[in-house]
Amino acid sequence: MSSPTHETFAHSIPKGKLVKAFSAFLSPETILFEEEDLRPYECDGLSAYRVLPWMVVLPETVEQVQKILQICHSWDIPVVARGAGTGLSGGALPLKNGVLLSLAKFNRILAIDPISRTARVQPGVRNLAISEAAAPAGLYYAPDPSSQIACTIGGNVAENSGGVHCLKYGLTVHNILGLKMLTMTGEEISLGGETLDSPGYDLLALMTGSEGLLGVIIEVTVRLLPLPERAQVILAAFDNVAKAGAAVGGIISAGIIPGGLEMMDNLAIRAAEDFVHAGYPQEAAAILLCELDGTQAEVSHQIRKVRELLLSHGAIEIRTALDEQERAKLWQGRKAAFPAVGRLAPDYYCMDGTIPRNRLPQVLERINELSQEFNLPVANVFHAGDGNLHPLILYDANRPGELERAEQLGANILELCVAVGGTITGEHGVGIEKINQMCIQFGTAELQQFHALKAAFDPKGLLNPGKAVPTLHRCAEFGAMHVHQGKLPFPELDRF
Amino acid sequence: MSSPTHETFAHSIPKGKLVKAFSAFLSPETILFEEEDLRPYECDGLSAYRVLPWMVVLPETVEQVQKILQICHSWDIPVVARGAGTGLSGGALPLKNGVLLSLAKFNRILAIDPISRTARVQPGVRNLAISEAAAPAGLYYAPDPSSQIACTIGGNVAENSGGVHCLKYGLTVHNILGLKMLTMTGEEISLGGETLDSPGYDLLALMTGSEGLLGVIIEVTVRLLPLPERAQVILAAFDNVAKAGAAVGGIISAGIIPGGLEMMDNLAIRAAEDFVHAGYPQEAAAILLCELDGTQAEVSHQIRKVRELLLSHGAIEIRTALDEQERAKLWQGRKAAFPAVGRLAPDYYCMDGTIPRNRLPQVLERINELSQEFNLPVANVFHAGDGNLHPLILYDANRPGELERAEQLGANILELCVAVGGTITGEHGVGIEKINQMCIQFGTAELQQFHALKAAFDPKGLLNPGKAVPTLHRCAEFGAMHVHQGKLPFPELDRF
Repeated sequence: MSSPTHETFAHSIPKGKLVKAFSAFLSPETILFEEEDLRPYECDGLSAYRVLPWMVVLPETVEQVQKILQICHSWDIPVVARGAGTGLSGGALPLKNGVLLSLAKFNRILAIDPISRTARVQPGVRNLAISEAAAPAGLYYAPDPSSQIACTIGGNVAENSGGVHCLKYGLTVHNILGLKMLTMTGEEISLGGETLDSPGYDLLALMTGSEGLLGVIIEVTVRLLPLPERAQVILAAFDNVAKAGAAVGGIISAGIIPGGLEMMDNLAIRAAEDFVHAGYPQEAAAILLCELDGTQAEVSHQIRKVRELLLSHGAIEIRTALDEQERAKLWQGRKAAFPAVGRLAPDYYCMDGTIPRNRLPQVLERINELSQEFNLPVANVFHAGDGNLHPLILYDANRPGELERAEQLGANILELCVAVGGTITGEHGVGIEKINQMCIQFGTAELQQFHALKAAFDPKGLLNPGKAVPTLHRCAEFGAMHVHQGKLPFPELDRF
Repeated sequence: MSSPTHETFAHSIPKGKLVKAFSAFLSPETILFEEEDLRPYECDGLSAYRVLPWMVVLPETVEQVQKILQICHSWDIPVVARGAGTGLSGGALPLKNGVLLSLAKFNRILAIDPISRTARVQPGVRNLAISEAAAPAGLYYAPDPSSQIACTIGGNVAENSGGVHCLKYGLTVHNILGLKMLTMTGEEISLGGETLDSPGYDLLALMTGSEGLLGVIIEVTVRLLPLPERAQVILAAFDNVAKAGAAVGGIISAGIIPGGLEMMDNLAIRAAEDFVHAGYPQEAAAILLCELDGTQAEVSHQIRKVRELLLSHGAIEIRTALDEQERAKLWQGRKAAFPAVGRLAPDYYCMDGTIPRNRLPQVLERINELSQEFNLPVANVFHAGDGNLHPLILYDANRPGELERAEQLGANILELCVAVGGTITGEHGVGIEKINQMCIQFGTAELQQFHALKAAFDPKGLLNPGKAVPTLHRCAEFGAMHVHQGKLPFPELDRF
């Protein structure tokens, strides 16, 4: 039941030997090994950590991926799969002694079926491209991470991505029906299909969110939803953050499931307003953006009800977007919140924790206290409806000690999430970013079970090693460990 | 990667020794070992197969379950967990040399939280009892298997149960948020919680539908939904089964997601009508029952739209329930369809396969041909909206060869489901009933992965052995195997 130790798998294959082996079935321009070619792959969206990969391959067929995996498996070379590299937790951070397997060339939409309401696509297809292709049939793919223009469905599956609408429409796991994957030995496994249920263990769900540690995704069948007839957004302003938090609970417990229910605090409001002029009330302590979608009649009915609820929870201003243009404007502020906050300080650190909805007011108050204790501003922008927080910690990496303070504050916020019954990640995954916090989230029994499960798929531990699930050894040492700027706090990765 | 062989684990512990060990922490009335006490546990809802268990235990605390598992683990005694015993695929069929672990005494609702919209319950709580307890808060638990008065949430999780409303509201896996389980060694593992997403591998989904092979569920946190303001049902009659099938596709592809969308063919209609007088048109080749739920306005709008769609697909009669009484009456016929069909012949065999929705007309035609080839009537009653078929094969077990013919016809229907891209089970699970068909559903790569996964949880293979996932050996022999009446066609089980 113990996890594979990383030392066991350090290989000593010369680079030239591997290039030669790959050249037998890959064209030269799809094997990258010179520093200038490798540079674009040295990080994903968590750009604070960078490692130049040993080699990058860009296969175009399943057979090529199979051969790559078979060779790496037999020579004990670790493999990191990569979609668009937009992930925020370092899940696609390369290994200095490993192969980075880009699925970028798997970018074809294979089929769209309006009766089964499904799309079958290759893993490198962009999230938004699926909805664009389905639009003529009046359908769309619901999960919409903010990177949806760029991020790929394969990456979405690996990270179990969410988005603004996941309160109503669920995460990736709730919106996919089938997967084809390759194991580390290159064997193809088909999971699910076009039907709702499937016999056997639910490997489809297990693969979703497994962060590239169990297999390589080569095809995805997603569920498509009918485009709502109408969507309308309400903005409500509050003079107190706790009141806004309570209003979220009020809406949900009244039986309304909004398409999106977002919250921003004053710092985030002012940053967004300065940046895109969305028309937000700059004096408000917090605003809620509540989107209602459905049929014409349903939306009208719900708008009336939500307005009443917001007023009864102390909203000081309520505004309903009168047309599509105004609706787009209100959302624009929310969508630009991260870069907008980014203008307030040289650096920011975006956290991603979830809490039970009924703890919102209490947790927001405690984050505010922590912000003062650490003397670092924190802007709060989050998917309030499903309790998914995105505190943005502002700091200046050039000031000695500030990065460490920001990281410590972030860790404290995640620990707070766990303490109130929540989790250390809502939709960004664990990757390398939160691997220490996994030691807080889970006990030894769960971690041992995770490692046993990993070994059932990848006994040699070659797929994306060092990510997502900490070794028991790491957890035993966690607490005594300090993060040093400029040096990766992940010694496991150094071994590859 | 090979599956544990069953021979390895046959134990030779004397019954008296185990009773003595259990008596140290269980009261005498919760240890059953005399034949008369064991008899009620000899089968579940798949009553064609019966095995008298070696021993039954009815623990009341988690600590007791832990001790039972620890003892059985150390003495290599297999364990079968049982909820209410309403399962239809033999998942809770006992072992003649194993312990049947009843969770019946774990029947407490631990918490209901209207803001988080969750209920935390013990595994032996009945499905309907959750909705009853949540009703004062205007909430309910959506999955509604037809056995919901009796079946327990622990069993629902083990089988990933569905129900009439799963088209709109999903299966069990879509409606649970947290689990506590014990491994075969008695270790407690906590999965998920009250939040939408959770880091680490998705063991919550993996446990759901794992049919008691991976662990014992000791607590479940379910998602609650707001009770819809209004629900209304439309009955539509067709003179042709294929037209009814096409109308299902028409409704779905128009972007409507009914709360329920059920279909019955002429044999089922007449049987139900004779039995409960629901007012069904007895000459129709098929009827659809389409339930629409939501707000007042939304339901009115959808009813208009669905009526138009039904007419354009050739419905010869449409009736909308005018009041709650009429609605209940229309559903009563559907809910009584199984026992009603059961009155037409001495025996019936209920199948449970799913197909992609767009294959409905074609598959129904082929089932009709198969029915004629095998000279056995088949009544079709099913969740049309999600392509979940329940063909009921009528036969007389007293006529030589008819049971075998019914089983072969059933197997052919399931193989047909797989051939069109569907699956061998929609909501009843594999159990022992469909273990051979798993060899058709999955290839060697998938089955090997299933066995590796099982070994990661239960290396000795003591939890519910012989069920759900066939050995590669069984699949190799499948095809040459014949079923003999009166003798279990599952030699693996005989070894326990």
